[in-house]
Amino acid sequence: MPFEPTDYLPYDFANRRHIGPSPSEMAEMFEALGVEDIDQLIGETVPKGIRQEAPLDWGKPLSERELLYHMRQVARKNTVVTSLIGQGYHGTVTPPAILRNIFENPAWYTAYTPYQPEISQGRLEALLNYQTMVSDLTGLEIANASLLDEATAAAEAMTMAQRGAKSKETRFFVDENCHPQTIGVVKTRARPLGIEVVVGDPDTLAPGEVFGALFQYPGTNGHLRDFTDQIAALHEADALGVVAADPMALCLLKEPGAMGADIAVGTTQRFGVPMGYGGPHAAYIACRDGLKRSLPGRLVGVSVDARGNRAYRLALQTREQHIRREKATSNVCTAQALLAVMAGFYAVFHGPEGLKAIAQRIHRKTVRLARGLEEAGFAIEPEVFFDTITVDVGLFQKGVLASGVQNGVNLRPVGDTKIGITVDETTRPATIERVWRAFGVEREVGSVEAGYRLPEDLLRESDYLQHDVFHMNRAETEMMRYMRRLADRDLALDRAMIPLGSCTMKLNAAAEMMPVSWPEFANMHPHCPPDQAEGYAEMVTDLSEKLCWITGYDAISMQPNSGAQGEYAGLLTIAAYHEAQGQGHRKVCLIPVNAHGTNPASAQMVGWKVVPVKCDAKGSIDIEDFRAKAEKHSDELAGIMITYPSTHGVFEETVREVCQITHDHGGQVYIDGANMNAMVGLSRPGDLGGDVSHLNLHKTFCIPHGGGGPGMGPIGVKEHLAAHLPSDPRSGETPGPVSAAAFGSPSLLPISWAYCLMMGGAGLTQATKVAILNANYIAKRLEGAFDVLYKGPEGRVAHECIIDTRPFEKSAGITVDDIAKRLVDCGFHAPTMSWPVAGTLMVEPTESETKAELDRFCDAMLAIRAEIRAVEEGEIDRENNPLKHAPHTVEDLVGDWDRPYSRDQGCFPPGAFRVDKYWPPVNRVDNVYGDRNLICTCPPMEDYAEAAE
Amino acid sequence: MPFEPTDYLPYDFANRRHIGPSPSEMAEMFEALGVEDIDQLIGETVPKGIRQEAPLDWGKPLSERELLYHMRQVARKNTVVTSLIGQGYHGTVTPPAILRNIFENPAWYTAYTPYQPEISQGRLEALLNYQTMVSDLTGLEIANASLLDEATAAAEAMTMAQRGAKSKETRFFVDENCHPQTIGVVKTRARPLGIEVVVGDPDTLAPGEVFGALFQYPGTNGHLRDFTDQIAALHEADALGVVAADPMALCLLKEPGAMGADIAVGTTQRFGVPMGYGGPHAAYIACRDGLKRSLPGRLVGVSVDARGNRAYRLALQTREQHIRREKATSNVCTAQALLAVMAGFYAVFHGPEGLKAIAQRIHRKTVRLARGLEEAGFAIEPEVFFDTITVDVGLFQKGVLASGVQNGVNLRPVGDTKIGITVDETTRPATIERVWRAFGVEREVGSVEAGYRLPEDLLRESDYLQHDVFHMNRAETEMMRYMRRLADRDLALDRAMIPLGSCTMKLNAAAEMMPVSWPEFANMHPHCPPDQAEGYAEMVTDLSEKLCWITGYDAISMQPNSGAQGEYAGLLTIAAYHEAQGQGHRKVCLIPVNAHGTNPASAQMVGWKVVPVKCDAKGSIDIEDFRAKAEKHSDELAGIMITYPSTHGVFEETVREVCQITHDHGGQVYIDGANMNAMVGLSRPGDLGGDVSHLNLHKTFCIPHGGGGPGMGPIGVKEHLAAHLPSDPRSGETPGPVSAAAFGSPSLLPISWAYCLMMGGAGLTQATKVAILNANYIAKRLEGAFDVLYKGPEGRVAHECIIDTRPFEKSAGITVDDIAKRLVDCGFHAPTMSWPVAGTLMVEPTESETKAELDRFCDAMLAIRAEIRAVEEGEIDRENNPLKHAPHTVEDLVGDWDRPYSRDQGCFPPGAFRVDKYWPPVNRVDNVYGDRNLICTCPPMEDYAEAAE
Repeated sequence: MPFEPTDYLPYDFANRRHIGPSPSEMAEMFEALGVEDIDQLIGETVPKGIRQEAPLDWGKPLSERELLYHMRQVARKNTVVTSLIGQGYHGTVTPPAILRNIFENPAWYTAYTPYQPEISQGRLEALLNYQTMVSDLTGLEIANASLLDEATAAAEAMTMAQRGAKSKETRFFVDENCHPQTIGVVKTRARPLGIEVVVGDPDTLAPGEVFGALFQYPGTNGHLRDFTDQIAALHEADALGVVAADPMALCLLKEPGAMGADIAVGTTQRFGVPMGYGGPHAAYIACRDGLKRSLPGRLVGVSVDARGNRAYRLALQTREQHIRREKATSNVCTAQALLAVMAGFYAVFHGPEGLKAIAQRIHRKTVRLARGLEEAGFAIEPEVFFDTITVDVGLFQKGVLASGVQNGVNLRPVGDTKIGITVDETTRPATIERVWRAFGVEREVGSVEAGYRLPEDLLRESDYLQHDVFHMNRAETEMMRYMRRLADRDLALDRAMIPLGSCTMKLNAAAEMMPVSWPEFANMHPHCPPDQAEGYAEMVTDLSEKLCWITGYDAISMQPNSGAQGEYAGLLTIAAYHEAQGQGHRKVCLIPVNAHGTNPASAQMVGWKVVPVKCDAKGSIDIEDFRAKAEKHSDELAGIMITYPSTHGVFEETVREVCQITHDHGGQVYIDGANMNAMVGLSRPGDLGGDVSHLNLHKTFCIPHGGGGPGMGPIGVKEHLAAHLPSDPRSGETPGPVSAAAFGSPSLLPISWAYCLMMGGAGLTQATKVAILNANYIAKRLEGAFDVLYKGPEGRVAHECIIDTRPFEKSAGITVDDIAKRLVDCGFHAPTMSWPVAGTLMVEPTESETKAELDRFCDAMLAIRAEIRAVEEGEIDRENNPLKHAPHTVEDLVGDWDRPYSRDQGCFPPGAFRVDKYWPPVNRVDNVYGDRNLICTCPPMEDYAEAAE
Repeated sequence: MPFEPTDYLPYDFANRRHIGPSPSEMAEMFEALGVEDIDQLIGETVPKGIRQEAPLDWGKPLSERELLYHMRQVARKNTVVTSLIGQGYHGTVTPPAILRNIFENPAWYTAYTPYQPEISQGRLEALLNYQTMVSDLTGLEIANASLLDEATAAAEAMTMAQRGAKSKETRFFVDENCHPQTIGVVKTRARPLGIEVVVGDPDTLAPGEVFGALFQYPGTNGHLRDFTDQIAALHEADALGVVAADPMALCLLKEPGAMGADIAVGTTQRFGVPMGYGGPHAAYIACRDGLKRSLPGRLVGVSVDARGNRAYRLALQTREQHIRREKATSNVCTAQALLAVMAGFYAVFHGPEGLKAIAQRIHRKTVRLARGLEEAGFAIEPEVFFDTITVDVGLFQKGVLASGVQNGVNLRPVGDTKIGITVDETTRPATIERVWRAFGVEREVGSVEAGYRLPEDLLRESDYLQHDVFHMNRAETEMMRYMRRLADRDLALDRAMIPLGSCTMKLNAAAEMMPVSWPEFANMHPHCPPDQAEGYAEMVTDLSEKLCWITGYDAISMQPNSGAQGEYAGLLTIAAYHEAQGQGHRKVCLIPVNAHGTNPASAQMVGWKVVPVKCDAKGSIDIEDFRAKAEKHSDELAGIMITYPSTHGVFEETVREVCQITHDHGGQVYIDGANMNAMVGLSRPGDLGGDVSHLNLHKTFCIPHGGGGPGMGPIGVKEHLAAHLPSDPRSGETPGPVSAAAFGSPSLLPISWAYCLMMGGAGLTQATKVAILNANYIAKRLEGAFDVLYKGPEGRVAHECIIDTRPFEKSAGITVDDIAKRLVDCGFHAPTMSWPVAGTLMVEPTESETKAELDRFCDAMLAIRAEIRAVEEGEIDRENNPLKHAPHTVEDLVGDWDRPYSRDQGCFPPGAFRVDKYWPPVNRVDNVYGDRNLICTCPPMEDYAEAAE
């Protein structure tokens, strides 16, 4: 019969949807690169000696539909029980408009960290709203745009207090009423830094013996106290006071600033961000003005653009990426931007009136719940409270807990004889009745009066959220348009390639994202009984197995909730191992000078001494220098930290030798997984000699960047290290926890798992190959126009390439910044700037970009090179040219035009779409002005109007 | 205690989220209008005599969270069983990228019908893709941009054939292999038009006795035949041939065009649009070039803009809205734009290779399924097939059906002894085994060979989808960006007010939209056993009760799937009632001249004679003319059709009198519900004397417009008419069905239901009041600058106001079109143009718009008036001014500027956002050029590039 069966696979996710170049595009690229096929290219790129033997293979990849079906089955294995467990995790109502228009909108979730302010004004404004909210609620002048979780925020506050206090004491006091995971993470962090943590009742605080103290407010069991006196005493002793506060409680209660606190931390999870079995949510940190320069994390500030119009940008950036590496005591890199945006919008959505009303409702329901139990004869503490009470049940603790579950509520054991209950905005009358029923009390909510039992002397007296943005019309129509306007100001992956070297901005497929919003993943408390979370357990186990297969390691910890956190956790694991071997004195860490900036910071954090190792002209480790230093420090060698392929984008052939030398000297090998996208399926760090690696799931494994977080940085380790992985956050085991929740930010795991399941081993391997193909194609096309630094022996780059722009500063006065901004005119986010080499651009296209998009980028770069040449040759002025005026805005077009190039040349360079052009909302932003005139909360609305006019 | 409990209600959806103006804004508006409060305004607007007595009240409104919880409970009452029922409804895989980026994206779903082409280029391109797909697959030159469902498309094809055929026969032949609902709807439509439908075997067709014939391909029970000979014979007899074809089958089989068909119809549901228990999905209609001017529905065509660049717009619009009302035989108004966009993207997403592969897979699975049964001894027909087979089971039909359900598959009864099975792209190997098990056959899929059993002489020989858009790179990254680019070209409710009079473009809240995507609502076959659809039943029942309460009627039919369909259904119901009363001769319908254009067309469709009634100077019915005509036609009076409040936006006090007169003369009263948004909670058509009304759920009840559909037009009737409502589509009862599915487009009902549940009776009533407030506020602010036509006795308008722009044509040469286009520069979709009065703008702000947005609009209108004045006073040229050049584009800015006004004045008139400006992608579109050079499929890609450059 004449019927020709086709071999086209319509549901092949890997090759059809995830990987960008089509087969015909790839053929063209092979030709351009002078190779027969992709395997020839890989052969010329990835040294034989490091290739893995067995291919990845866990069976047939799933189609998108099969994946979603499978995910639904797994989701059903989680039982969503109403959790009244509290301890920093609360039921919350995510306004549907925020869920749909932000959390489920690629314009928000695929955006990168707003380092390029001209294309990030939307999320910068949203984050400034968040900072203003935190600053207002805590009563402190400066708040950053989020940390990873409350526990790590508390640990950051501790080291910040140490930097900021005049006291030279080495002890840090921690309120015993802190959440257990907070105490755990603070202790973990303190130990390697030589800080002694004293946990106790605030009444026992000896201010003269500590450099600072951390108090919880309300306490984990509901107690409310005023820390004004303790903080005054601390100040008297040159020590600082930190308050960990629930922002919802602060809507009714005296704020930390009013108590004199120097620093406040907490989580904004209950501001509309689902619990997600532990994360992600945005933690906050705020401080008084005098401490702002030691505030960790990202800080959005207000500045002006080249026309003098208001513009936002990240402020005081020297604090962060450019921190002097050997002196760092924080490696904070990822924030929780997407979740901070959501929490900020929750506040905009409700305004101060709404937040106050919600807080009052929560409190009234708690009073009602407590009264019902009291009237039944139970003893409740404390006498006054916000949302949390503790009930003495004597021998019946287990019984009441079990009865709670039977009645559909998770309660919390306190000690051996008590039950803790925390009410939230989702608690319904029926829920209160079910709680009573768990205690054997049968009555109707209506029969118990609500009321107020807040401490009179702790009522909040100051206003908050007085800025206009929190008083805008709260109709959904208005909110939706505000969210859309902000989204439109930004350039994210849904409009253009973001060729950020080392950041792996690949496709975040819709099918991967969808399960994250499902209630079975979103509405789980991290402390719920394990038998309610079997779906999560299955996912964690299976994904861990796959990641072990991919990396060549034997065990995985999902706990680190960022890449930097993963590094830190990896080094902690090594340190704990050495200690267990009686080798606790090993504290020297060798790090090549081209390492990620977070590497030395992480080493500092585990108390190690960083010894830098030279690199050769090709960006590879100088093996002789390395050998010499390893020998020199042999007795104290804790380990080395290397990145593979190197941050210069080279597969160093010496990697096995480096690992061997390290092992010979008793050290452990940490291989940074930032560049794992160049390795998956081709080479395994565990096979090369690595003992531990972290994986950036938000790079290689498709978790979107969310405009600067969330991230996930699980670590893989060899078997001998498995016993020393981070402990459960609430257990007291060494080396202790690194994050608040056992599995970090587990509600993101469906994304990476879906990616592995839909790609299959062969698909993942092909993705790696195409990532390398794409990078080499760009390097090839730019050949001649730009120098590509650090090629391998056969003239190939790995999955990224470094373009040298340093010569142009001299030849034409054109800086890397000028080129980056000019790329905005062409419709691109700039590549990574000045890292790992100052004055260069590092380009990483990833496998998800099509050849057409790569060509659009190359066309833009070549046109920019031509513009530079015009300056070099004197055809156009060195100051008055399209590069210096970039990016161009509509304002440029509308006004008079007295430039030596046309409007058309200015606004539509090659690469720019004609009809669908992205217009940056501001001209080039003045960073210096902003840092000199630091403003990190929303300016008055009139100023916006002015700036807009 | 000093604690002040707040009375702020944070979860009040009605007043906090849905209704736009805040309390303080409303206070300002009252002041502007000179009223104390909203009730005073309503008192001056809505005559006492028509106010309803009892308020709406069905208990406490639900919060968004409660609503979603409630919806989940109801959704769980639907049991999702794999349906292999076929008959035009198939399981399909909606690509997640399309679901997320189109179906769940307000930029797509809140858009209006693309009548204003300059702000609709994105969806016009998407719809042109759809037309190209249909045209290619059917092999016919012209395809429209969708009809409501396959059955109504077949009925439209019948009347189109009658218009197009030279034959004067009055019979229409219908293949007995058509889907039963198709036969039902065609019969319903035929009867009042005097067409006799002959249902039979195509072999019995007598070409000389009919004006046309409809064939189904594949037949409803799977038979495949070549209709080439029949169609040739029809042509011989001056009659036309229509083929109803499954587009998926056409990917493998000979296309209708190749058989000589004049018209093809069908549904594109299985191109990625969930079954939704019957709808919505896009039906297609395509025809050969010679018939294009009688093609019903919307047709996208290619034209040029004022700069000569390519631009899309609706072509041949005279066919549609401007159809001569008294001669219409189609009242098609709503299309299924959003679903057509999805189906078109499904084709782009898969391309011809993918569609062919999917069709082959479906076929191979069907072969396997059939062989398994044959090898077990069952007799299968037909011998060759595409996706549907019929199995003889003798006495065991009920048993096999029941066993199917037990095994998780819904099969279809055929006659009394057979079972029909239809395979689709979601059918999995396990599904096939479950089908076998239902027949008592236990074996594994792997043990049966797949293969091909297509008829060799019916294999498709022509190519399809050869245009570049169907060959673009199919990576999700590329697709996502294409969808985003198209979305960004359009202006929808997510960016600005769309003040379209009579269209009620109100908020489509995210919480209302979410349940529509849930599998329990999306994946239900309309013919599934009723006990699987109890959730739907509960929703239909409860929503019907609420709509009865709101309208004052006694019964509701959800069947009409558009407003115009509702009108038609309402009149059919009246006609059936008259007939049952022995009054079948009553065929005169009185319609005021200011009626909706669809009214007379609908009356025509039920075979009535339209007698127009005059209106007075205020736009109200001329009661004396009405009385005279009612008396004159007393014996034949079928009824009247009025709109309330009138299309002129006036609450006529005479409405009860008009109804009384009609009833006195034996007629029935049809009250058009298009303006129901001015009545809900204040007045009930059923109380005023109405016997039947339709409700536009896509206006008053929040179903989004989707860029021109879907819609829903259920009708409410008084008790005496309840027995005459449209019948089940597969039953033979009179008056017959009007739509393919029993409940029209039921998967949209969660939206309207959610709206009623979250608003509550009081909230709905307040919404009505604020809709009236908003309209009056606009009328007040524009006072003096523009004449507002048709105010009530106290100087108030209803929920919309008509602005007279006719004087400016004479005074300044400025047309209503110029003003509409200039509003685009100000960032607005134009109000309704030239309806109901030529040369006017009808503005309906709805209750969802804030005062700030109304002010932005009024500022824009006043600035436009000032610009007109400048022309009137000779300050600026009559041809060379901002109004005539509107809308302004970036192209205007970039090029030379030799206009007598500045770039700034041109592009940033009052109302326009400075930073967040919407830039139309094209200048003013030339409609005449497009109609003269009609192109209704995608032009070659090079042309795009050219146009873009």
